[in-house]
Amino acid sequence: MQGTCSCSGSIASLRGYQLQQRCRGSRVVTRRQCLRVQAAKTADGPSLAIVGVTGAVGQEFLRVLKERDFPYSNLKLLASARSAGRTVEWDGGSYTIEELTEQSFGDVDIALFSAGGSISKKFAPIASDAGCTVVDNSSAFRMSEGVPLVIPEVNPDALKGVSAGKGGIVANPNCSTIIALMAVTPLHRLAGVKRMVVSTYQAASGAGQAAMDELELQTREALDGKPITQNIFPFQYAFNLFSHNSPMTGNGYNEEEMKMVKETHKIWGEPDIAITATCIRVPIMRAHAESINLEFERDVSEEEALEALSKAAGVSIINDRAANRFPTPLDASNQDDVYVGRVRRDISRPDSRGLDLFVCGDQIKKGAALNAVQIAELLL
Amino acid sequence: MQGTCSCSGSIASLRGYQLQQRCRGSRVVTRRQCLRVQAAKTADGPSLAIVGVTGAVGQEFLRVLKERDFPYSNLKLLASARSAGRTVEWDGGSYTIEELTEQSFGDVDIALFSAGGSISKKFAPIASDAGCTVVDNSSAFRMSEGVPLVIPEVNPDALKGVSAGKGGIVANPNCSTIIALMAVTPLHRLAGVKRMVVSTYQAASGAGQAAMDELELQTREALDGKPITQNIFPFQYAFNLFSHNSPMTGNGYNEEEMKMVKETHKIWGEPDIAITATCIRVPIMRAHAESINLEFERDVSEEEALEALSKAAGVSIINDRAANRFPTPLDASNQDDVYVGRVRRDISRPDSRGLDLFVCGDQIKKGAALNAVQIAELLL
Repeated sequence: MQGTCSCSGSIASLRGYQLQQRCRGSRVVTRRQCLRVQAAKTADGPSLAIVGVTGAVGQEFLRVLKERDFPYSNLKLLASARSAGRTVEWDGGSYTIEELTEQSFGDVDIALFSAGGSISKKFAPIASDAGCTVVDNSSAFRMSEGVPLVIPEVNPDALKGVSAGKGGIVANPNCSTIIALMAVTPLHRLAGVKRMVVSTYQAASGAGQAAMDELELQTREALDGKPITQNIFPFQYAFNLFSHNSPMTGNGYNEEEMKMVKETHKIWGEPDIAITATCIRVPIMRAHAESINLEFERDVSEEEALEALSKAAGVSIINDRAANRFPTPLDASNQDDVYVGRVRRDISRPDSRGLDLFVCGDQIKKGAALNAVQIAELLL
Repeated sequence: MQGTCSCSGSIASLRGYQLQQRCRGSRVVTRRQCLRVQAAKTADGPSLAIVGVTGAVGQEFLRVLKERDFPYSNLKLLASARSAGRTVEWDGGSYTIEELTEQSFGDVDIALFSAGGSISKKFAPIASDAGCTVVDNSSAFRMSEGVPLVIPEVNPDALKGVSAGKGGIVANPNCSTIIALMAVTPLHRLAGVKRMVVSTYQAASGAGQAAMDELELQTREALDGKPITQNIFPFQYAFNLFSHNSPMTGNGYNEEEMKMVKETHKIWGEPDIAITATCIRVPIMRAHAESINLEFERDVSEEEALEALSKAAGVSIINDRAANRFPTPLDASNQDDVYVGRVRRDISRPDSRGLDLFVCGDQIKKGAALNAVQIAELLL
């Protein structure tokens, strides 16, 4: 698809690295979305590390780096001692997984972390002190003062002053927050969101590869009439759904729900936006869906909303009422974009200041690995 | 469980039939819930007919009638010519399915219809004219002037003047409406619902037995890496979810969503309540879930709400925050009650006039067959 983009400036320079455009057929894309890193292994690229390379997101980091031809001079794969010594074939090279230690980061410019909150809490500051810039997929630092929490299409300016090889931690938001805000931010810019009521339909992948494996195993067992194996969740997941497994907080919301509230406030820089969320795990493999009800500062038409969404980077619209065709998790699976549909005036608001929409996004990709790699691109 | 109820009056008479109490362990139940019909086949019971006995709901009618020992003097099983002649064993007897004709209802006191809207439209008035009282599970007459639309726990008074063997049509509400209102009505009585934002997680059973079969078949195919068979829905259902398959209406809401709005207005007799709904089909077999956000006329505490729900007939509470244990579709499957949990103050409303909750109910049972049989009990 390279070279087919219609926007101007096929080669541009951003922070010292070569960039070229990348477009997707006839989809409307913005200038920012068209920028992409050109080369892969290159002597003047940054030295990269992936922490937690054996996990679902760690594996996706590798795929996304390759898909986007992310420039790198060196790649270090880090994991626990248990995985150290295993070999990974990637981009024509063979890489041996090394054990993550306090000495891992001296020669690393950018580290992508996805090994859980406790690993991030311990090793991200060590990496940063060693001059490595960390993009952290865990929730460990998301709400920390001074740590940018970034969706590149939404608040790239939060990365001002942060760059590869200079140390510092950048937090990748929670998957549900990213997927919601990809769709809602263009509408917020259009008419000012006052209140948001979200119900999620979340995939197994958010709980890791083991949860995906358990869903598959349980589904086979259920179909065969066998007893259900329960290692990850305390109840049956196959042909069932349940309130999100994150810990409860004092107000009766679980942590996943509170992440949507607090992270949205931080990313938008607007702590007064009213948000309530109900997060539910459904028997889907890797893409989240979200039903979102929005109240705006002013009245908004469906046409205006669809126009704003059609211009938004990283957003695709599937909204064919005649064919009853709207986004599904399978549409979004393995895709970069967040898909939006069911865009309609909220009939419960006579003041026309409400919209309902339905959003699907790949949890591992835009909800995690892709967003982190996009942040890394902005560090170059 | 009979005889263990703590409420008074173990035997009562209602409209000429013997009733006895029925309770479920230590669950709080109301007097109304405890009333149940005692006998099964009895000379002074009504003559019954089931129209559409071969469908998922038709089959459930038979199970529920037996479970509740519904009194009957005669039972007629009606279906299309295709199924006529087949034999059904039930309650110790053998019944031959008869073809539904205009002459089917002359000797019938109560007919339970679940054979689709067009069959109801044609045959329910014929049955009524013949003196048979129809309880119709289709949407054909729900919004018709003069046709009671009834959830027995919510608006039994709408049945005033209607009784078995006198003709007339009573409509059974849509499954999603019944399940929502079982949970929301006690709260509406408590503090007056002003606005309701609902997102549903709807089971295959709402689209009939064939949809359940297709979900199972597709799931096997997906696990085996085979091509997916698509007869009922135009896209993959296994490990996927999609906007409800009912037809779109002019305002961008589908018919299922508009049923929730209009039926709630009729059942509560309050056409001004603001409601928006997003209806989604999830890969679950037979119980619906609903995420419900409520705005009230006054502030409501979680304690008040739980107290009201604990006293509500047909409602069970699963709301264990410490154990992160809330209702799931599997909890509700094959159960009479609607299960409610995640009851919490809506933090997006500083005026404390909001609650969020999560509700699960069996689509075939309380969402269809059980509710219809409960209506029939009130006709005796």
